[in-house]
Amino acid sequence: MYFFEEIKVGQRREIGSFTFTADGIKAFAAKFDPQAFHLDEEEGRKSLFGGLAASGWHVGSVCMKLLVTDGQRQASEAAARGEKVAVWGPSPGFRELRWIRPVLAGDTISFASEIESLRTSSSRPQWGILEARNSGANQRGEPVFSMLAIAFVPRRSGAA
Amino acid sequence: MYFFEEIKVGQRREIGSFTFTADGIKAFAAKFDPQAFHLDEEEGRKSLFGGLAASGWHVGSVCMKLLVTDGQRQASEAAARGEKVAVWGPSPGFRELRWIRPVLAGDTISFASEIESLRTSSSRPQWGILEARNSGANQRGEPVFSMLAIAFVPRRSGAA
Repeated sequence: MYFFEEIKVGQRREIGSFTFTADGIKAFAAKFDPQAFHLDEEEGRKSLFGGLAASGWHVGSVCMKLLVTDGQRQASEAAARGEKVAVWGPSPGFRELRWIRPVLAGDTISFASEIESLRTSSSRPQWGILEARNSGANQRGEPVFSMLAIAFVPRRSGAA
Repeated sequence: MYFFEEIKVGQRREIGSFTFTADGIKAFAAKFDPQAFHLDEEEGRKSLFGGLAASGWHVGSVCMKLLVTDGQRQASEAAARGEKVAVWGPSPGFRELRWIRPVLAGDTISFASEIESLRTSSSRPQWGILEARNSGANQRGEPVFSMLAIAFVPRRSGAA
């Protein structure tokens, strides 16, 4: 994880890809989004989605998983190089989440994260605030998911 | 599920409550948000959260589950009364999701949904578009979660 000073607007990082299986779609839906088109192939085919479709919350949660594991990978690589690792603050939330196209069983979604804005916090000068556009595209390159995440990032100058 | 014409700004509905157990928090986090403060009590206590804290995506997914099951309950009650049941369109996304306070192991969160705005779709006159504020509060009545959801709702006049 980087400090505020090392982050630039426009930086983009591929954070990994994930294949949504029918079983995985149904298991998530049974727990968190039990609508028929997320639980049953035939109901999915008859729906606007045209097939068994992943819950939007499943897609967002998978994006979160890839963000976290990518961040952990970066942090351990930095630690292995003997660098000081920045510890980001908890996220207060996000804006503009969009489910752009259905994610159907068998689709492989590749996620990326791009820095969209950076500013310093006036009330907490040791922190910067960034907005990152996290997005996913399917195996045909079509966008399926987008959200604007907000994160607090420590400033190197403010680090202990 | 209601038709557009039956929905009024300010309508509020309690959609149910859910207790986040330590095991449930850890199981979700292991799959979707493997940060230490979501996986381990001691790491949670040492963190800004002050205890084992649920992933924000877990909180949002539980809210989705309660929205879906509440909608299904309403639809079957309406069907039992012999009423025509409106079939809502898929959600294009949402705005302004906020994680306001941590949700810790043992917390019981009560969720509600309140209609914040209503308009008709100019491009698809048979549909209305609503924004609903979905929110959660803990057992002390403190707000922990809020999001502004967007949904397409059929107009009774446009129904087949």
